[in-house]
Amino acid sequence: MNKPNNAEFLRNIRIILARPTHPGNMGSAARAMKTMGLTQLYLVQPKQLPDANAVALASGASDVLANAAILNTLEEALTGVTVACALTSRRRELAATLSLPRDIAPELVARAQHGEQLALVFGNETSGLSIDEVAQCNRLVTIAGNPSYSSLNLAMAVQVICYELFSLCVSGVNLPRVGDERYATQPAVEGLCRHMDETMAQVGFYQGRNHVRLIRRVRALLQRAALRQEEVDILRGFLKEVQRKTGH
Amino acid sequence: MNKPNNAEFLRNIRIILARPTHPGNMGSAARAMKTMGLTQLYLVQPKQLPDANAVALASGASDVLANAAILNTLEEALTGVTVACALTSRRRELAATLSLPRDIAPELVARAQHGEQLALVFGNETSGLSIDEVAQCNRLVTIAGNPSYSSLNLAMAVQVICYELFSLCVSGVNLPRVGDERYATQPAVEGLCRHMDETMAQVGFYQGRNHVRLIRRVRALLQRAALRQEEVDILRGFLKEVQRKTGH
Repeated sequence: MNKPNNAEFLRNIRIILARPTHPGNMGSAARAMKTMGLTQLYLVQPKQLPDANAVALASGASDVLANAAILNTLEEALTGVTVACALTSRRRELAATLSLPRDIAPELVARAQHGEQLALVFGNETSGLSIDEVAQCNRLVTIAGNPSYSSLNLAMAVQVICYELFSLCVSGVNLPRVGDERYATQPAVEGLCRHMDETMAQVGFYQGRNHVRLIRRVRALLQRAALRQEEVDILRGFLKEVQRKTGH
Repeated sequence: MNKPNNAEFLRNIRIILARPTHPGNMGSAARAMKTMGLTQLYLVQPKQLPDANAVALASGASDVLANAAILNTLEEALTGVTVACALTSRRRELAATLSLPRDIAPELVARAQHGEQLALVFGNETSGLSIDEVAQCNRLVTIAGNPSYSSLNLAMAVQVICYELFSLCVSGVNLPRVGDERYATQPAVEGLCRHMDETMAQVGFYQGRNHVRLIRRVRALLQRAALRQEEVDILRGFLKEVQRKTGH
């Protein structure tokens, strides 16, 4: 697994929860953020302060929760921010274009890399963002979902957004195959195909069957399987044993 | 904003939770699924059955929870499944290539549209998937995250995966073509693995060799090969002939 080269700039992106009700959601949001490399959590007028339940749900991200800024107004939470995205599932009048997270993430990451401060603003669990809160943002973002049930839990929405941002830090990256295995060469695979063919003939498997079609199929399978040399050795070892036991 | 034209095929993709501990996570997973149009939840040996807490967290997705299949083995949960993705955050030996959700989602959606049954398999909250559970899957998928804290909550991981799948239903991207071949189901591949193991034992191939390592290797190969049902039939026909000729 490749490590993101340097996702330090993700700390320029803050997650703001406006008027959250449940401490558990604050903890879950902190965990969701940290799994994707984000650390800056802002709580605006939380109904309750983070409690033991919040800490439990934050799990290994209790540092993010402990460092959360707790503020009285969204305006304060947006200090220094150039792009503020309002997360909303409702159509809004007189508002900016609605973007999908995937469409807006590249702009956000580019600006964060450039040193700008950005915010993603999530509303209350029940009522969402108020008109006034949306008015303080300059982008509208919606997570598309099931038209008949699109009610993501607050922390789930935070997870999806942070996942989109982090994905841009790993995408384009080739994941290596697991381990340093030695792939079989084509001649080695060819040798296995021939050995298989020979053994199938010797045990009488082809009798009354379409030989050409069968071996073509087996060959296609062995070619497709990205065989490792060790696997070729195992299969040939088995075939040899079959030949020995059947007197060939 | 594009609406998903018709995401009926998402019901061909099942979410399997293997040995989940917390009913709350089952409920949250059901909600996460439904927000993204998925409905088929399978619980394999849940430590507790879904309870009031699970229903509360399922919120408007209590139907998905109520309809969840509760099974004793992963093998049963994989009935009819052609592609089973093991979600894992750990490196695995002898296994298929590790994919990111974004990389594998197009194939999954294309196959689901084609009518195949697919599964995403999530392990226990604490221990993840066992070696044996991973061995029953033919794809490995990992959600890339913060290298120093990548511990997504179970339901959060379900949300991310379902989000990736649903995203393909809203963006107009081109999906790969799936051929008309009949892929073997996971239980069929499992049956072949067992038949292979039995025959290798009967002809004495294991004598003086490391049995566990050998069969694990063969299993990894067969899982990786994207076997067609016809190929399973051919190989089993051959093994049967070997057994007959060696007096078993």
